[in-house]
Amino acid sequence: MSETIGFIGLGLLGMPVARNLLTSGYTLKIYNRTASKVEPLLALGGTQRYSPQDVVTSGGIVVSVMSDDAALESIVSSEGFLERLGKGGVHLAMSTVAPETSRKMAALHAEHGCLYVEAPVFGRPEAAAARELWVCCAGEQAAKERVRPLLEAISQGIFDFGEQVGAANIVKLCGNFLIISAGRSIAEALTMAANNGVDPNAVVDMLTTTLFSCFIYQSYGARIVANSGVYQSNWIAVKDTGLFEQTAQKAGGSAPLAHLLHEIMQENLLS
Amino acid sequence: MSETIGFIGLGLLGMPVARNLLTSGYTLKIYNRTASKVEPLLALGGTQRYSPQDVVTSGGIVVSVMSDDAALESIVSSEGFLERLGKGGVHLAMSTVAPETSRKMAALHAEHGCLYVEAPVFGRPEAAAARELWVCCAGEQAAKERVRPLLEAISQGIFDFGEQVGAANIVKLCGNFLIISAGRSIAEALTMAANNGVDPNAVVDMLTTTLFSCFIYQSYGARIVANSGVYQSNWIAVKDTGLFEQTAQKAGGSAPLAHLLHEIMQENLLS
Repeated sequence: MSETIGFIGLGLLGMPVARNLLTSGYTLKIYNRTASKVEPLLALGGTQRYSPQDVVTSGGIVVSVMSDDAALESIVSSEGFLERLGKGGVHLAMSTVAPETSRKMAALHAEHGCLYVEAPVFGRPEAAAARELWVCCAGEQAAKERVRPLLEAISQGIFDFGEQVGAANIVKLCGNFLIISAGRSIAEALTMAANNGVDPNAVVDMLTTTLFSCFIYQSYGARIVANSGVYQSNWIAVKDTGLFEQTAQKAGGSAPLAHLLHEIMQENLLS
Repeated sequence: MSETIGFIGLGLLGMPVARNLLTSGYTLKIYNRTASKVEPLLALGGTQRYSPQDVVTSGGIVVSVMSDDAALESIVSSEGFLERLGKGGVHLAMSTVAPETSRKMAALHAEHGCLYVEAPVFGRPEAAAARELWVCCAGEQAAKERVRPLLEAISQGIFDFGEQVGAANIVKLCGNFLIISAGRSIAEALTMAANNGVDPNAVVDMLTTTLFSCFIYQSYGARIVANSGVYQSNWIAVKDTGLFEQTAQKAGGSAPLAHLLHEIMQENLLS
């Protein structure tokens, strides 16, 4: 594990991922827009760089964990990034973005002889810290094999959706849509029960030990009860319900549930 | 188990419930609107009756499994039914109805000195046949204790929501809403994936072994994949999303997701 890896993006997810790579023995050259965030990682052996291209080793591996499509595009198009990555270099992109953004990125990398692996992950920051993310990946086989040890170091499981970049982000958007739909449904059910005099705890206990005895219902159920029946929106929920709907529409379909969830997540964010 | 039980309603759910009570050793007097449906149960020791009141033993137990609020109300208000059930008699009502219908039924029974236990169940007909229903119940404690052996004979678990009739139907409507919401969400996700060239089987495999590793997602996931991404509507889905929305609204809340699901279930039923 002596290979030096470039690492870009220390957000809520990127920070624990970088920390786990460092404690697994990887050497990281790290860039983050807000430079001060790199500091806690220096003690773990990380080194700080001040531009995207400066984390890149020719023909090496660079990992990015960006917040959205625009942030990912801005890194890839930043001065010297692709030129330096060059022939045989691999970009492991862990952001959740539109599949077409991912395909556009893959094409740009191909123009410079480098490879693009998309690997969006499921899991909250606590799961990332505990190396319990679930990874969806897609990209050229040899490139996926090269980055596999990194993905193993940060996750509890890797699901491979083939060589066509875009597929893993489609699955990720499906999963986020199902999570947000479940969360909002739980909130609507528990509010209906509470308003009618039934203890939401009893409803959650019954349903999550029988029909819905799985992680999402158990964790969101408990959290929504504690939050007085409210499923908290955030910008990720707004972004991903929007991307889901766009992706459905661009393929000629409709997504009325995603449309409503996008509206509700937006309203709850503003209120 | 020598007590003779009255039994009304041999629909998709009532039939396997009656069969399991008979094979558990109960003697049943059975009424069904379509009389010919009783025939297969005669060989198991059931006896046929031709009106609701004729299945009733004074002070005994009568079980009903009706399709909706109107059918339940018509049984309870039928000639001689409550009069004959009389003092100490117990009506175990397994239909899924509006909580206010259930409360109205309980009040009518109280006027005649008899007791009303609501016990809506979760489970498809196959689960009912295998004694794998989940029961939600509410009603007076002594009455619930009296009917408990019957519920144990037909289910894999009983959840008691107290003495206030209505509570168990509120929980049942919450559960059906969550099931229908999950089913429709899975359909929307798998259709989006398939339209974008991703194998729905791979999506279901990934999600139901990780975040959603529970009965509803596994069974509906497989069924929806087999049905080309369509979540089949039926009159129960239309009825219960409608009852959920009404119950939310009557308590002063709104239920935008239930409203949309009700519309979608209605459209899919008609098309």
